[in-house]
Amino acid sequence: MYDGAVQTLIDELGRLPGIGPKSAQRIAFHILEASEEDMIALAHAITEVKSKIRLCEICFNVSEHEICSICRDEHRDTGLLCVVEESQDVIAIERTRTYNGRYHVLGGAINPIGGIGPEQLRVRELLTRLQDDTVTEVIIATNPNLEGEATATYLTRMLSPVGITLSRLASGLPVGGDLEYADEVTLGRAFEGRRKL
Amino acid sequence: MYDGAVQTLIDELGRLPGIGPKSAQRIAFHILEASEEDMIALAHAITEVKSKIRLCEICFNVSEHEICSICRDEHRDTGLLCVVEESQDVIAIERTRTYNGRYHVLGGAINPIGGIGPEQLRVRELLTRLQDDTVTEVIIATNPNLEGEATATYLTRMLSPVGITLSRLASGLPVGGDLEYADEVTLGRAFEGRRKL
Repeated sequence: MYDGAVQTLIDELGRLPGIGPKSAQRIAFHILEASEEDMIALAHAITEVKSKIRLCEICFNVSEHEICSICRDEHRDTGLLCVVEESQDVIAIERTRTYNGRYHVLGGAINPIGGIGPEQLRVRELLTRLQDDTVTEVIIATNPNLEGEATATYLTRMLSPVGITLSRLASGLPVGGDLEYADEVTLGRAFEGRRKL
Repeated sequence: MYDGAVQTLIDELGRLPGIGPKSAQRIAFHILEASEEDMIALAHAITEVKSKIRLCEICFNVSEHEICSICRDEHRDTGLLCVVEESQDVIAIERTRTYNGRYHVLGGAINPIGGIGPEQLRVRELLTRLQDDTVTEVIIATNPNLEGEATATYLTRMLSPVGITLSRLASGLPVGGDLEYADEVTLGRAFEGRRKL
């Protein structure tokens, strides 16, 4: 519909996740009206991220270096290993400032419908990391949904024979949430996981 | 939070309209995981649009050429001139396939709070276009909101002395809409604009 380059941009933007045709059009016109400098910066950020970012060779978190900043950090507790699905989860946990161990990024969760089994995840790499006796506790922090639970169950079975302490993040009512509006599964979990006062 | 290039990309994406921090993060990770080829295409589309696209010298629609494809089209009725706020509106009207005249893109609407008065719009250029007697009807197609109505009123006052037929797009119930859920202003307009059967 639009003259060549505008339509090309709208099409390219529309392929990004969560961006529909209307948003793509709005963003394209924003780009048209924005300063050339800003938009060159955006284009540069996209190509830079593709050329610079790789996965950490130890934990498979995204990193600009062979070893990510968390794995390089000597003040981290090397006895704790938190297993997450994606790099985004690492950031979410880091934001809490409650965890000082290291991570292992699986690269997804078990999802038979999506064709993702344990072989597609970095489970072998996890087992390799546990071979020397540095790690004393593995915290399974996969998402509290079907795929995440399946992955947690699988990992529990795999790691139990290794003889390392295994733990799972607590499920329950979100802080600041309202009991009345909690779904029954969450409320059920909150009961199961109730703590003595 | 993230290693340099990822955070830079998230920041740049977060500056686009309608993209919050969560979306920016999701898109950034999509870019990280997408093929290098696709993402170079995206970056290229952004820089291309900035270097290639300009405003048509006649109607100020976005165009790859000095004169846009609509103004160049000899099959168009040069007697009709449709005045719109933005280039996006041209596309919306073109999609209806009911209009075969030309356009004039004002570049916005009168909005005193936003500091946009008639001087900031391409009103002078519109008057210049009406000097030779080619145009016989000006269709004011500004948005049916406060700013658009103010702009329409202003244009009506400016153009009345010129002695050209002026018209305004009809307001009323949207086709496929439900009378029950129409807001009172729209319903009122639908009454005012009722047609004899």
